[in-house]
Amino acid sequence: MANFKGHALPGSFFLIFGLWWSVKYPLKYACKKNKKVFSIGSKTGFQQIEVIEGAVKAAFALIGMLAEQFVPDGPHLKLYNYEEQQWDHLMNWQHSTMYFFYGISGVVDIITHTTKAVPVAMDRLMLAIAVFIEGFLFYYHVHGRAMLDIHIHLLLLFAVFGGSLCIFMEVFLRGNIILELFRSSLCILQGSWFWQIGFVLYPPGGGPEWNQMDHGNMLFITMCYCWHYAFALLIVAVNFGIVTWVVQSKLKGAQPMEMELLKSQEQESEDDI
Amino acid sequence: MANFKGHALPGSFFLIFGLWWSVKYPLKYACKKNKKVFSIGSKTGFQQIEVIEGAVKAAFALIGMLAEQFVPDGPHLKLYNYEEQQWDHLMNWQHSTMYFFYGISGVVDIITHTTKAVPVAMDRLMLAIAVFIEGFLFYYHVHGRAMLDIHIHLLLLFAVFGGSLCIFMEVFLRGNIILELFRSSLCILQGSWFWQIGFVLYPPGGGPEWNQMDHGNMLFITMCYCWHYAFALLIVAVNFGIVTWVVQSKLKGAQPMEMELLKSQEQESEDDI
Amino acid sequence: MANFKGHALPGSFFLIFGLWWSVKYPLKYACKKNKKVFSIGSKTGFQQIEVIEGAVKAAFALIGMLAEQFVPDGPHLKLYNYEEQQWDHLMNWQHSTMYFFYGISGVVDIITHTTKAVPVAMDRLMLAIAVFIEGFLFYYHVHGRAMLDIHIHLLLLFAVFGGSLCIFMEVFLRGNIILELFRSSLCILQGSWFWQIGFVLYPPGGGPEWNQMDHGNMLFITMCYCWHYAFALLIVAVNFGIVTWVVQSKLKGAQPMEMELLKSQEQESEDDI
Amino acid sequence: MANFKGHALPGSFFLIFGLWWSVKYPLKYACKKNKKVFSIGSKTGFQQIEVIEGAVKAAFALIGMLAEQFVPDGPHLKLYNYEEQQWDHLMNWQHSTMYFFYGISGVVDIITHTTKAVPVAMDRLMLAIAVFIEGFLFYYHVHGRAMLDIHIHLLLLFAVFGGSLCIFMEVFLRGNIILELFRSSLCILQGSWFWQIGFVLYPPGGGPEWNQMDHGNMLFITMCYCWHYAFALLIVAVNFGIVTWVVQSKLKGAQPMEMELLKSQEQESEDDI
Repeated sequence: MANFKGHALPGSFFLIFGLWWSVKYPLKYACKKNKKVFSIGSKTGFQQIEVIEGAVKAAFALIGMLAEQFVPDGPHLKLYNYEEQQWDHLMNWQHSTMYFFYGISGVVDIITHTTKAVPVAMDRLMLAIAVFIEGFLFYYHVHGRAMLDIHIHLLLLFAVFGGSLCIFMEVFLRGNIILELFRSSLCILQGSWFWQIGFVLYPPGGGPEWNQMDHGNMLFITMCYCWHYAFALLIVAVNFGIVTWVVQSKLKGAQPMEMELLKSQEQESEDDI
Repeated sequence: MANFKGHALPGSFFLIFGLWWSVKYPLKYACKKNKKVFSIGSKTGFQQIEVIEGAVKAAFALIGMLAEQFVPDGPHLKLYNYEEQQWDHLMNWQHSTMYFFYGISGVVDIITHTTKAVPVAMDRLMLAIAVFIEGFLFYYHVHGRAMLDIHIHLLLLFAVFGGSLCIFMEVFLRGNIILELFRSSLCILQGSWFWQIGFVLYPPGGGPEWNQMDHGNMLFITMCYCWHYAFALLIVAVNFGIVTWVVQSKLKGAQPMEMELLKSQEQESEDDI
Repeated sequence: MANFKGHALPGSFFLIFGLWWSVKYPLKYACKKNKKVFSIGSKTGFQQIEVIEGAVKAAFALIGMLAEQFVPDGPHLKLYNYEEQQWDHLMNWQHSTMYFFYGISGVVDIITHTTKAVPVAMDRLMLAIAVFIEGFLFYYHVHGRAMLDIHIHLLLLFAVFGGSLCIFMEVFLRGNIILELFRSSLCILQGSWFWQIGFVLYPPGGGPEWNQMDHGNMLFITMCYCWHYAFALLIVAVNFGIVTWVVQSKLKGAQPMEMELLKSQEQESEDDI
Repeated sequence: MANFKGHALPGSFFLIFGLWWSVKYPLKYACKKNKKVFSIGSKTGFQQIEVIEGAVKAAFALIGMLAEQFVPDGPHLKLYNYEEQQWDHLMNWQHSTMYFFYGISGVVDIITHTTKAVPVAMDRLMLAIAVFIEGFLFYYHVHGRAMLDIHIHLLLLFAVFGGSLCIFMEVFLRGNIILELFRSSLCILQGSWFWQIGFVLYPPGGGPEWNQMDHGNMLFITMCYCWHYAFALLIVAVNFGIVTWVVQSKLKGAQPMEMELLKSQEQESEDDI
């Protein structure tokens, strides 16, 4: 949907997932570092979380697809307009396709973490593919629009393809906290940038329109993208700090002495690496 | 051959190999997971399969080369037309070259898996090179054609170069099931897309021609490519499921108790990774 | 600042860091090779050095940002010029943004090496991001300038993106001396090239202006860039030689016999790898 | 030198190195596989070979630089022509720069393998840089020439950048026979292609000139490049076969029984990987 809501919806989805990941992975990392304390239930617990995450992802994808198809000016599942002899609402169909691959990714998440037959890394591969498809469709999507419109969408591709590459690396380096935090930050960036696109191209509340051909606007938008990323990094850092602090304060309450030793040992072994 | 058959032939080759791989690699994976049961004969068996695969690949390549050379409007091994002072049927020669490198790959497969002198990973390197050469020639191949014709061929390059990269990674990560399934899906995509190209550019049975300059057609074709890939993923998933189910049901018939333990152990060790 | 000083300032920053790295990493490498002798204090010493390095980086970034904002023709923190209805001094703001990310990198360095909660490799990820952002902004920065101006800035991107990739690899291959020396050389190249840009585009002392549209100048500048890199490699090599020589001469003074054995052993184990 | 000899000279250099590598690395691989037999002297022997190789590389680079500078229509070390107010013979200077970096690579080879202070992988990094610089200069080199001239030079870049990437990977995967053979084949390709460029652009013996704007010539040249590579692969394969056969026949003469066991063992362990 080429309007404000059509950008706010995926933006919210990405923001929710990005924020969630920026809490989940630091938590997992902190639990892993303090294995002795959090060993009970954590493994099956995280397994369940992955399944729920997959289900939420699939649900979001379904919502997105339905919204794209059944908004008043949507295609209502009609692909070809025989009267006008042309494809019907291709933009909506492309967006539906993007959501569809995220849906597949969600389903694969569920299958991977409920059955034992599928190799675990398959969830990352499928997510990497879904993100790549999003970028792939976006790349050809914006052909022939106004300069600022193209530029603001193409900037998104840095987050998209960067994210896809990062997730693809996780196939081989599963559980690497650096990659997981990097992915979280790129996901937040994507989410906040979708909102930004909505505000720039379809100013809500009848605000002034942006001059789409102004070179200054291009330069500003490029810089603004970096600021969004600085903001995304800040959020990830804050969440990481809070989670670490909460986990450690719980630890201190439980076993004040033992933990200090454990922590310093692990830090050392990490330094050696 | 710039006609329907010239696209259906390689399309069928790729489909056959993609489908075969989507059965072979899950089978190998399932056998590896249940080593104790399937240990007898499996190693030499898979060795023989690789040799046969190489022979089939070489045979397909030979068929392709002969077809390109000796169709009625083919070059019949004549490279230069001295009367018209120009190269003769360069398209067919380029296609022959593509097939030729797959032929080399087939021969290298046979040599690698029959003698002990050649390092095993050489078969993957040669296949990666063959796939890269295909993409390389395609890239320069379509220069100067109609917009849709160029676009529909260039889309193929995502599957081609993605596949080449994936196979090159297998040189170093041999036997990684994720990469093998990814390769299978890209191979099926390539096969089904060749058929799609044939249907779009040379509608069989005198169907209506596609407007090569219509922007809507471009957008649709791009999306259609994603649908093909979703379909390829589905096929790989179904084949994986069937193979796993067959192997496990055979296992249960043989050693009902022992296997359950074995399976859960391996799942755990995989999770730890 | 589009003048000589605006290029000399970052140039000096990069040169200082490049030169420092080309001393620090060979020193670390030499100490690691001779562990037994230099074991006392070296670990905590290098930890402190990292913290100081981060502080200096953050300080340089702050100086750069202040200089870009508060030079006489700077924006003085004003982003939008309401009178002229356009963005104010976007170039300076973009430069500030570049410096800002280096500042974040410096802060992350300090946090990583003072607390034990953050994974160590985070400092490399953040530096890789900072360098990438620099390249990203530069790429869109030079749009619409004169040919030589564009070319001379884009050449910089080889050092920038090469450096970013190199540092990103260090996330996974921390402490690899080859990557560290490669990074040092690229950093020196960037520093010296900033000075070169200043001399070419804003000849100090009223020297003759370069013809921005001359093809010969383009070719020369491209070659000149390679010479700068040869020079950077020479500096790294000389510093490596001096550091190695100093460390070894100190060793010989201390334990003449034991060291010879140790060295040859380590060389062998390295060869085996 | 933009003439036949100017392409035949580097072509010969690359051919000599490519052919030499296609003998050296299979030999090293065969010796490594049969460690017990060839253990005496092989390590120091290969060390010496590396030093000699570096010296030959440096000598070739020197010859190339001198030839580029002191041919009758060369710059004779004059960089700027003050009379015509322009750079003097920039093409020759660029070629000299390319040779120069190969010279550095040769010198680094010698230093790396004679002293024990430098990390061994440095020789690969420097070679990767030298090859990259060659490609980098070529890329900007051909700007503004005729279509076929540009195309035929840019094709070279596939071998150049492919080779650079391959050598860079060897920094981390030293001694990987697959990468070494791949590099050999790309080096032979580069050598034979330089000769091809010479024959196409400067037909010796007053042959007919190629039409530089003919699309058919473009397509043929692209395909011809693939044939060159098929030829390079054949040479590497043949050399690999001969070397393996010679080594094994020597082995059979020495210890007929023991070797058979050893070989089959190693093959198995390789398969497992």
